[in-house]
Amino acid sequence: MVLIKKDLFEEAYTILKEMIMEGNLKPGEKLVQEQIAQKLGISRTPVMHALRILETEGLLTINPRTKVMQVRDLSQEELVTIFEIRLCIEPLATRYACLVITNEAVEDLEKSFTIAYKTMDEKEYRRLDNKFHTYISEICPNRDLKDFTIRSGLISRFLIKGLIRPPQETYYEHLQVLEAFRKKLPQEAEKAMRRHIEITLAHLRRK
Amino acid sequence: MVLIKKDLFEEAYTILKEMIMEGNLKPGEKLVQEQIAQKLGISRTPVMHALRILETEGLLTINPRTKVMQVRDLSQEELVTIFEIRLCIEPLATRYACLVITNEAVEDLEKSFTIAYKTMDEKEYRRLDNKFHTYISEICPNRDLKDFTIRSGLISRFLIKGLIRPPQETYYEHLQVLEAFRKKLPQEAEKAMRRHIEITLAHLRRK
Repeated sequence: MVLIKKDLFEEAYTILKEMIMEGNLKPGEKLVQEQIAQKLGISRTPVMHALRILETEGLLTINPRTKVMQVRDLSQEELVTIFEIRLCIEPLATRYACLVITNEAVEDLEKSFTIAYKTMDEKEYRRLDNKFHTYISEICPNRDLKDFTIRSGLISRFLIKGLIRPPQETYYEHLQVLEAFRKKLPQEAEKAMRRHIEITLAHLRRK
Repeated sequence: MVLIKKDLFEEAYTILKEMIMEGNLKPGEKLVQEQIAQKLGISRTPVMHALRILETEGLLTINPRTKVMQVRDLSQEELVTIFEIRLCIEPLATRYACLVITNEAVEDLEKSFTIAYKTMDEKEYRRLDNKFHTYISEICPNRDLKDFTIRSGLISRFLIKGLIRPPQETYYEHLQVLEAFRKKLPQEAEKAMRRHIEITLAHLRRK
């Protein structure tokens, strides 16, 4: 009985998170428990707990007065701070990732990036940009660092639409991180990632 | 109906979290859903969701095979990494906190610290050390930074028992942060906090 409930909750959580990540639920959009429960064909309790976790993860906000939930709509100020956080956390995760990433994974990332770059497919490039950062977070062998990196990455990538800077700039910065991975130089990888995020942060601050 | 369930869940969450923070539930201790539900006089579902949130927050672990939950027992390596994360995040939160902290709060923190230091009450000093760091996280006006700082602080403070360094060292480091707060110098406050955590991290790495 409890096991079934847990599965329903995990399912509701996964579906809702994907809807935010795919942009089917947009920043500012309201989420009504009853409607979601009806749509997914499950009771309100697992939906409520899924929403609570997504709020803990920073993807949703609750209006404290009306208790209405909505997809979080980042202010410019919040966006800058989330990049300040990423600037702290992600280079550290990159250093750790360098110790465990395989040559095959490095080649894969470089190959797909290069194809998307050369064919000038911006949507595909954006998908790979997400994949690149997500992959580095996910292979990070420390649980806390992994969680913090994934979470800050999710907030900054899925609550804004489109690329902040053009592929012409970021492509080469990604290659530098991959190059350091290939040479197994953790501190170089850390530095390259820091530079990459620093430039984006400077760009955001000028806006 | 749903509201009542939500309250039960929040209640279970608050009680369990406090039990970890107070050391009534110790690192490594197993948590059995049925027993907790019985003890708190509520059903298993709100307990299960409270445990799930505490796991998301990094205070519990689940054995992926047996599904047994226990209070997290940090390895030396994990402890070092959580301080690396704090070294990134907390000075940033301190810079933001400097913009909003009141003179009264600064005086309060300094006064209570000084009393605990002079009376050599280590338990009370530890409580105030926690209060000092928690207070800075909590007044941080950015939601994400606040969440990240509180979370890394909780993990590093409540899953280890006792002080890492003696009050004779840390007392003056805390005073330097407070001094920067008093003078309204955000970057000085940030630097003083970074120094404070850096010394602790170096100490942990030597262990």
